[in-house]
Amino acid sequence: MKPFLVAPEEAVENLRKSRYRVGVFGFGHVGLTIGVGWGLAGAKVIGMTLDKQAIRLLESGLSPFPEEAYLSKYIENLRTRGLLEVTDDYSYGARETDIKIIAVPVYLSSEKKPDLTPIIRVSEEIGRSLIKGDVVIIETSIPPGTTRNVVRPILEEKSGLKADEDFALAYSPERISAGTVLADYLEKYPKIIGCDSPGSLNLVAKLYSAVVKTGVIKMSSTVAAETEKLFEGVYRDVNIALANELALLCEKMGVAYDEVRAAANSQPFSHLHKPGIGVGGACIPVYPYFIIETALNQGVQLQITQLARSINEKATELFIEKIVKAVHFLNIDPSKCRFALLGLSFRGGTSDTRLSPALRILEFIEKTGAEVKVCDPLVEKVEGKDIEILRDWRKAAQGADAIVIASDHKEFYQIEIEEASSLAGRETAILDGKNVISNLNGKPRYRVLYVGVGRPAYLLEPDGSKKKVEL
Amino acid sequence: MKPFLVAPEEAVENLRKSRYRVGVFGFGHVGLTIGVGWGLAGAKVIGMTLDKQAIRLLESGLSPFPEEAYLSKYIENLRTRGLLEVTDDYSYGARETDIKIIAVPVYLSSEKKPDLTPIIRVSEEIGRSLIKGDVVIIETSIPPGTTRNVVRPILEEKSGLKADEDFALAYSPERISAGTVLADYLEKYPKIIGCDSPGSLNLVAKLYSAVVKTGVIKMSSTVAAETEKLFEGVYRDVNIALANELALLCEKMGVAYDEVRAAANSQPFSHLHKPGIGVGGACIPVYPYFIIETALNQGVQLQITQLARSINEKATELFIEKIVKAVHFLNIDPSKCRFALLGLSFRGGTSDTRLSPALRILEFIEKTGAEVKVCDPLVEKVEGKDIEILRDWRKAAQGADAIVIASDHKEFYQIEIEEASSLAGRETAILDGKNVISNLNGKPRYRVLYVGVGRPAYLLEPDGSKKKVEL
Repeated sequence: MKPFLVAPEEAVENLRKSRYRVGVFGFGHVGLTIGVGWGLAGAKVIGMTLDKQAIRLLESGLSPFPEEAYLSKYIENLRTRGLLEVTDDYSYGARETDIKIIAVPVYLSSEKKPDLTPIIRVSEEIGRSLIKGDVVIIETSIPPGTTRNVVRPILEEKSGLKADEDFALAYSPERISAGTVLADYLEKYPKIIGCDSPGSLNLVAKLYSAVVKTGVIKMSSTVAAETEKLFEGVYRDVNIALANELALLCEKMGVAYDEVRAAANSQPFSHLHKPGIGVGGACIPVYPYFIIETALNQGVQLQITQLARSINEKATELFIEKIVKAVHFLNIDPSKCRFALLGLSFRGGTSDTRLSPALRILEFIEKTGAEVKVCDPLVEKVEGKDIEILRDWRKAAQGADAIVIASDHKEFYQIEIEEASSLAGRETAILDGKNVISNLNGKPRYRVLYVGVGRPAYLLEPDGSKKKVEL
Repeated sequence: MKPFLVAPEEAVENLRKSRYRVGVFGFGHVGLTIGVGWGLAGAKVIGMTLDKQAIRLLESGLSPFPEEAYLSKYIENLRTRGLLEVTDDYSYGARETDIKIIAVPVYLSSEKKPDLTPIIRVSEEIGRSLIKGDVVIIETSIPPGTTRNVVRPILEEKSGLKADEDFALAYSPERISAGTVLADYLEKYPKIIGCDSPGSLNLVAKLYSAVVKTGVIKMSSTVAAETEKLFEGVYRDVNIALANELALLCEKMGVAYDEVRAAANSQPFSHLHKPGIGVGGACIPVYPYFIIETALNQGVQLQITQLARSINEKATELFIEKIVKAVHFLNIDPSKCRFALLGLSFRGGTSDTRLSPALRILEFIEKTGAEVKVCDPLVEKVEGKDIEILRDWRKAAQGADAIVIASDHKEFYQIEIEEASSLAGRETAILDGKNVISNLNGKPRYRVLYVGVGRPAYLLEPDGSKKKVEL
């Protein structure tokens, strides 16, 4: 029997015994994690995606994400046991499943408003096949009120059923981070669950308790659960903006922000963040706009949230200005400068380049007409660009006038000024957008202009001398 | 021999054997803590303050601060052993000591600029008596550069000696919080130490290592150490402002910020703060101005830091508006309203009323001409006001039309709506500025309008029904 027609304990038992089919709508990073998680709990999972290459890889038992290579063994295992099917047919997935989990991403329109089209399409698809007793769960991050005011009416209209009476409806945000998705989902944090009725809440909480190992937190409403997920992102965005602002002051004062931050954070009430060259990825730069929009509809101006977003958006331009100044400082004609760009992903340990500051830097370099060699240990291609991506930073650094570090991949923490200088074979500027280089002493073969973030800039001489410079 | 004339190990030995006298300039909360801490390490401490009543109490072996009553046993112990002397004669303290620790507070001028007068006066006093081999340490929170550019030149000019050559100079910020000062100083966090020479740094780090149990963090300069202390405060101020902003949105959405915050913070990358009715005390509302001023001098605008300050300053006015609306909602003539104001201190567990939002609320109530009964379990008097301060909230709540909770003393967490309603004996508004009341269910004797922070307002009826209301 369908899960919302039996006692929650029985539904859990059915899930464990592979009597339920779980449809995961959207099978990217988030969807795949959900699929593997529920599959490991015993569910028969149908993952849906339009990405043909991902389907091909998954059908061969392979993870489509290089930073999530460890998932392959689980994918292989679930496929062998008949617990994982992948398809591009969303209608089939909607028809054949008892529990439907929405994991399609919501992005921003060109006016920076949430574009709910993917959620609406999937809701319509699900609604058309919805049967009494089914369960619908949304894991996508969405503006507060979307479950209640957008998804619910669509499901009810298309199915002729009533949410919380005929079918269970829940909002339960994913809280995963590329590189550690499965552990994040299953083992690290409690699962947040929000429903608008006790019936849905009891059932969905029980089901998740059988999937994740860290327990669940029951929220009083779908809106509260939607809000909490976005607030997590706003907290980070605001604190990164604060770090950017304070780091800039440190640069002007000739003080190292890193050092100040570490000292301040030795007290447990301080959690100063790292500064950066802009915030990338599909989450932090996006969620503040969801909540800003929600607030405007309520007549509330989120001043700090808005200001933080604009500071973080300007951070990439400020870093590009530093690149220009550094090249100028070394008397290099920008259009003739040989650039090495290390890192394309929005942060280390992921191949995700969505909204990555590195791509804006790359565009800037290409516009100047300068030559550029690009390195990233994980990114395989950049949408719409025909560029060779080197795996080893050393190859990119050879003969470079300017080495720009734009992601904090673990490989880049091994970069030493002395080796970089020798590889460059000439006077070089190193623009360390992620402060991956910690040792600024040593004797580089040629003069090096080192520029970090929240640190004074230094001119490092072959004789080992070092002096602070203003760009 | 004076500490800066011997090896650091020998200086520590001398300190332990009570061969050194330590002068603490300013013997309030901070100074007293420092004095007790160094005394317990073996130093002969001379504490200096102009507060005659504090001197009288200290000479009787008593802590002058009710929330720091536990210090009395240490004070008594040190006095018995001849290790603690208190005086209002700063010149005597400057003459008679080997190690001089500055702990006078720096406040803001009426233009909200740091007023360094107390630091300058004490530096002059110390400079006049400074002897080769002495140690000078500043623990007061001050704008970056003050040690190097203000204190150092004064000490050198008045003494004819050179800092870092003839005497050691260090900046080492206190990180204590009223109510737990001694544990904060000795046991909780590492001691931050910044000097502008390795000689001063080695000596002062060794000395503090003999005083505190949690080790020291050596900073690369006095400026870096001054900066870290202020950044701790800025982080808190900005995050309280963010909480205020998000809490306001929650109120409008009818969602409980508390619930959302707890859920978000179940993930370790989120540290959303509590909202409030304005930030009080001598630290958080003050330090941002120090760093804003420093930044302006460097041509940098700290936009988030400034905005946060202005949001937090407006928070008290917003709460006062809520009081007005609540009284209006119950159709009470404001000038005839009987108010109970619970809490005067800037937060729970302290008697400190400096910049306390409660005082602004009190002023507002007094201006309306309304009657007000005031309760605070720790505050004994309010400067310039002749008011009776009740100890028990119940006495204040008797016959009240409006109960305003403005500090989160632990006693107030025991307030129950039902008891408050019975004490009031009439329809009442409860304005819970600290969200101390968690149980909004139950059957109050009379109708209660409950208004918290970041929560929807509720009308609670004697029959146990509860409805959200918009003020």
